[in-house]
Amino acid sequence: MITAKARAVDGPDKPFKEAEIKRRDLDTKDVLIEIKFAGICHSDIHTAHGEWGEVNYPLVPGHEIAGIVTDVGPEVTKYKVGDRVGVGCMVDSCGDCENCQKGEEQYCLKGNIPTYAGVDKYGEPTQGGYSTHIVVVEDFVLSIPDEIELDQAAPLLCAGITTFSPLHHWKAGPGKKVAVVGLGGLGHMAVKIAHAMGAEVTVLSQTLKKKEDGMRFGAADYYATSDPETFEKLAGTFDLIINTVSAKLKLDDYLSLLTLDGSMVNVGAPAEPLSLNVFSLIGHRRSFAGSLIGGIRETQEMLNFCAEHKIGPEIEVISADQINEAYDRVLNSDVKYRFVIDISTM
Amino acid sequence: MITAKARAVDGPDKPFKEAEIKRRDLDTKDVLIEIKFAGICHSDIHTAHGEWGEVNYPLVPGHEIAGIVTDVGPEVTKYKVGDRVGVGCMVDSCGDCENCQKGEEQYCLKGNIPTYAGVDKYGEPTQGGYSTHIVVVEDFVLSIPDEIELDQAAPLLCAGITTFSPLHHWKAGPGKKVAVVGLGGLGHMAVKIAHAMGAEVTVLSQTLKKKEDGMRFGAADYYATSDPETFEKLAGTFDLIINTVSAKLKLDDYLSLLTLDGSMVNVGAPAEPLSLNVFSLIGHRRSFAGSLIGGIRETQEMLNFCAEHKIGPEIEVISADQINEAYDRVLNSDVKYRFVIDISTM
Repeated sequence: MITAKARAVDGPDKPFKEAEIKRRDLDTKDVLIEIKFAGICHSDIHTAHGEWGEVNYPLVPGHEIAGIVTDVGPEVTKYKVGDRVGVGCMVDSCGDCENCQKGEEQYCLKGNIPTYAGVDKYGEPTQGGYSTHIVVVEDFVLSIPDEIELDQAAPLLCAGITTFSPLHHWKAGPGKKVAVVGLGGLGHMAVKIAHAMGAEVTVLSQTLKKKEDGMRFGAADYYATSDPETFEKLAGTFDLIINTVSAKLKLDDYLSLLTLDGSMVNVGAPAEPLSLNVFSLIGHRRSFAGSLIGGIRETQEMLNFCAEHKIGPEIEVISADQINEAYDRVLNSDVKYRFVIDISTM
Repeated sequence: MITAKARAVDGPDKPFKEAEIKRRDLDTKDVLIEIKFAGICHSDIHTAHGEWGEVNYPLVPGHEIAGIVTDVGPEVTKYKVGDRVGVGCMVDSCGDCENCQKGEEQYCLKGNIPTYAGVDKYGEPTQGGYSTHIVVVEDFVLSIPDEIELDQAAPLLCAGITTFSPLHHWKAGPGKKVAVVGLGGLGHMAVKIAHAMGAEVTVLSQTLKKKEDGMRFGAADYYATSDPETFEKLAGTFDLIINTVSAKLKLDDYLSLLTLDGSMVNVGAPAEPLSLNVFSLIGHRRSFAGSLIGGIRETQEMLNFCAEHKIGPEIEVISADQINEAYDRVLNSDVKYRFVIDISTM
C-alpha cells in the first residue's frame, strides 16, 4: 500500500484538513501517478457538501488531475515512468456493456466508477485528486501532450471534456451558430473550444460583466439574459446551445432561440426539475438534451485538440491551504475561471 | 366565387350545423377540389372548442382531405381535372424563408397558413375540409396514389404525416427499437408505419385493452403504462419513443426507457407545461424533442410509402349528420381509430 498525503473533509459542513490516505498496490495494469495539479470543479463542492446524495466521509474530492507516472504494473503497455498524464471524472467501468464497447464508458450500463465518492472493483472507496498520488488502471489514464502545461491540463479533464463532447457530438463547426449559457469554469472552455472548432459563438450570461473576457476567449457576440430584449432579438438563431449553468432557467425562453432542428444541451444539472412547454419544441423540431463528460477516447481527442489549437483554461493556482477559501469564492462566482491546486504545497 | 356546402360551428359550445361557405375563384396556380372524404382529427375538436386560442367563428374544421380535381387555374402544371388529390394541415406558406426553401414548409418562419382557422394571403379566413369543395394552390396539394382508397387516404394527411415525419427524421428502421405511446388515431398509424419501416415496435398504452389491435398493426410488444413494472422492465430499451398523447405524462419515467443517444419525440402537445429532471437526459445523452406534421415533399413520400407498403388507417366512415356524435366519441376515446366524414352526405 502507498500512503498519500491528501486534503479531506469529514462531513458536509466540515472544512478541508490534512489527511493521509492509502492507495492500493499496483495491480498488473495499474499506473501510479504523482499528482502535480488538481482542479477544483463545482461538482467537488456539491459532493463535499453532501448535496448530491449520501457520501462516505472522509472524502477527498478532485477529478481534474494532472501528474507524472512514477511506477507501472507489469502488464502496463500504454505508459512508462516519467510520462505526463491526466485522470478525469472516472477511473474504471465494466468494459463489457454496449456503451463501454462503443468507447462511451461514461455511460457504462453498470455505472462508471467515479474518481471519488465511488467504490472501486476491489470494494474500496475511491478518493480523488486533492492528494499526492493516485493509482489508476491504464485504460482510464490520459496522455497529456507536451504542448500543454500540467496546471493548464488539469481542468481540461472535466471542464474541457464536458464541453468538448457535446460540441463534438452535436457537430459544432464552420457555419454553425453556437450559444454558451454561463461563462464560468465550463462556459469559458465551451467558448474557446467551439470557437476553435470554427463555430460562431455567442455568450449568454446574466450580465455583461465578463463581456471583455468572453470576446477574448473567442465569442463573436455577448448578450445579457437579464435583458428581455435579448430573447426577442435572438429568436430562432442558434443551431446549438450549450447550457453550463445549474440554475433553474426558464427553458422556454432559451428553446425559442434555437433554429429548426436546433438542440439545447445541458451539461449543468439543476437539482430541481425544470419545466417546459412542449410547443417550444414542436414548433421547430427542437431538442432538449443532456450530456455527461465524455469517453476516454474522446477525452484524449480533446487533449490533442487543445494542444493543436493552443487552447487551455484560465486558471488561478492556489496552495492546498487555500481550498476552503477557494470553495467560498467558487460559490460566490469569484473565480476567473478555474482554481487549480498546486499539489506540491500539500 | 364558388359556393360550397359545409358543416360549421358558431361558437366554442355550439354543435355543427349546415352552412354555406365561399371558396375563391381560381387564381393562376389554384386547384379546385371536390372533397370526397374528410377525417376528424383531435385538433379539429380543440380548435372548434376554442381551446387553442381565439377562433373566428363560424369555423369549418377539417385538415385530412381527400377528393378529386374538378378545375385548375391557367398556370397549374402538377394536376389536371379528375386527379385524385389530398390536402393536409396547411394550404400555403411564404415559400421564401430558409425553412420553406428546405421543403419544411410546416416550419415556415412567417408561419404556414393552416387549412382552417387561419388567414390566407388574400386576407380571408381559411375554412377546412368539412365541406364539399376547397381551393388550394397546387404546391400544397398532394397526389393520392391509385392503391389508396380516398376514404383511407384522408387520415394520412394529418395522422399519417405527423407520425411518418419523426419516424423518418429520427431514422426508425431495421435494428431500431421504437416505442409508441398511445394507441389512438396518431398512435395506430405510428405503429403501422414504424413496423413497415422495419423497426421493432412496442406500444405503451395505459391498459392492455387494445393489445390485440396493436399486435395486428405490427407491434412486437405491448405494455400497460399503468403497471409500474413496465418502466423497470423496459429501462434503457428504446432508440426512439414517439409520444402521441397530449396528457401530462411523467416524462422522467418515459425518458428512462431510452438507450444511449435515444430520443423521445412529442407529436402530442399538452396544453400545460411538462416537468423533467435534467439527470434523466444527462445520464445517457438522451433528447426530448417535438415534431410538427411534415413538409409537402415528405407528405408525398409518406403517401407513396403507404401505397407501397399497403398500409392505411383503421377508419369508421360517418355521415355529415354524425359529426357532433363523433366528437363526443373521440373525447371518450371511443373510436377505432379515425372517423372519416363521407362528404357526399353533406
